Amino acid sequence: MNLILLSRSEVDPSNRAVLGGRRALHIIQVLKAGIRDRIRIGVEGGKAGFGTITAISGETVEVDVELTEDPPIPLPCTLVLALPRPIVLKRLLVHITTLGIKKLVLINSRRVEKSYWQSPALEPGNIRSQLVLGLEQAKDTILPQVILMPQWKRSFREDIQDIIKGSEAFLAEPEAKETFTGEHKRPVTLVIGPEGGFVTQEIEEFLAMGCRPVKLGIRILKVETAVTAFIARLL
Amino acid sequence: MNLILLSRSEVDPSNRAVLGGRRALHIIQVLKAGIRDRIRIGVEGGKAGFGTITAISGETVEVDVELTEDPPIPLPCTLVLALPRPIVLKRLLVHITTLGIKKLVLINSRRVEKSYWQSPALEPGNIRSQLVLGLEQAKDTILPQVILMPQWKRSFREDIQDIIKGSEAFLAEPEAKETFTGEHKRPVTLVIGPEGGFVTQEIEEFLAMGCRPVKLGIRILKVETAVTAFIARLL
Repeated sequence: MNLILLSRSEVDPSNRAVLGGRRALHIIQVLKAGIRDRIRIGVEGGKAGFGTITAISGETVEVDVELTEDPPIPLPCTLVLALPRPIVLKRLLVHITTLGIKKLVLINSRRVEKSYWQSPALEPGNIRSQLVLGLEQAKDTILPQVILMPQWKRSFREDIQDIIKGSEAFLAEPEAKETFTGEHKRPVTLVIGPEGGFVTQEIEEFLAMGCRPVKLGIRILKVETAVTAFIARLL
Repeated sequence: MNLILLSRSEVDPSNRAVLGGRRALHIIQVLKAGIRDRIRIGVEGGKAGFGTITAISGETVEVDVELTEDPPIPLPCTLVLALPRPIVLKRLLVHITTLGIKKLVLINSRRVEKSYWQSPALEPGNIRSQLVLGLEQAKDTILPQVILMPQWKRSFREDIQDIIKGSEAFLAEPEAKETFTGEHKRPVTLVIGPEGGFVTQEIEEFLAMGCRPVKLGIRILKVETAVTAFIARLL
């Protein structure tokens, strides 16, 4: 936790906040901070800065909040990802948040197991928890937007085209001839399939939508590795 | 499993092999392959190619092995990594193998918990299992070498300098001014610290050994994300 994230409503008009739970425990037990110590703080959706500890009682920490810095600049990249296995999704939500992605679209594919869409990992509160872990790691305050598209129905193509519009869109494809250099003149949309890849028909859909097939390296990566590897070329 | 990996001793002089266990189950249950089907096969430390199934009985599969292709070219990069948490190590062994790393040196750091060095994850058989998963994913046959250096003793500096010798050595460091572009004229050594980073004295050691501090992006990444991200710049 490189930054303690507060919600706007937690900061009162005199810039004071009272923290409990895991954040207070982190301040007391991990940072071992005491009265008058300054800790890194950020407000969700807003600025970052420092909190000066004014009181510690039991498992509650009171801080004076001073917000002076803008959060780091978002990475100009939307990730369109076939829904991975829930345990992989949980880790990926942290990876992509620390990498600066601000828009993740989770889509279906023939090779996505239907049961994945029923996983508790997709409940808004659980998604949010993972994103917050990422923000705390990256000293960021802007939560990524996560969009679920469980059905590949008629409107899907239009929805994806709306997402792609104005961007340079790339489809990760181990058989592609072109390597993904990460060079781009406009914001990027990155489309990454499930383990085993998109089926031919799905690949054709994305190509028809204007996605350029690109590969990275000469080996087939697992989805979790591929997501970080492709995004890393944009950093 | 994009390739079934055999050891040399499993292939008899007439190029026949008999498989049981998880590999046979994979062929029967996942690939749903039958007699005369050809499956991707590779021999550990050797060539890759195809196996033609000649017999299936119960949970045993017999194949005629035909080895025609060289394995993918190793990535010219040695990774020197502060030993991560065992569960993260397990995943990282797969990540780095699929990325083509052939030499991993696990070192100690003030911020590495001592108990990590006692983990069963470090037993040779368990390390090997993860590396094999990576090779099967990447259609590779060359097992990475994993070297454990649990002590930062006097000979450590010499050992690390031997590893670095002849390479361009980089130290991943979020505070660095220079970005890691991945451009290199000689093979690369990449040094990545523990969660929370190397302590100042350790950083100075690596700088004294000729490592160039480099960062990637403007956010602090978790070790697991950083390893894949840095290596991705070399693909």
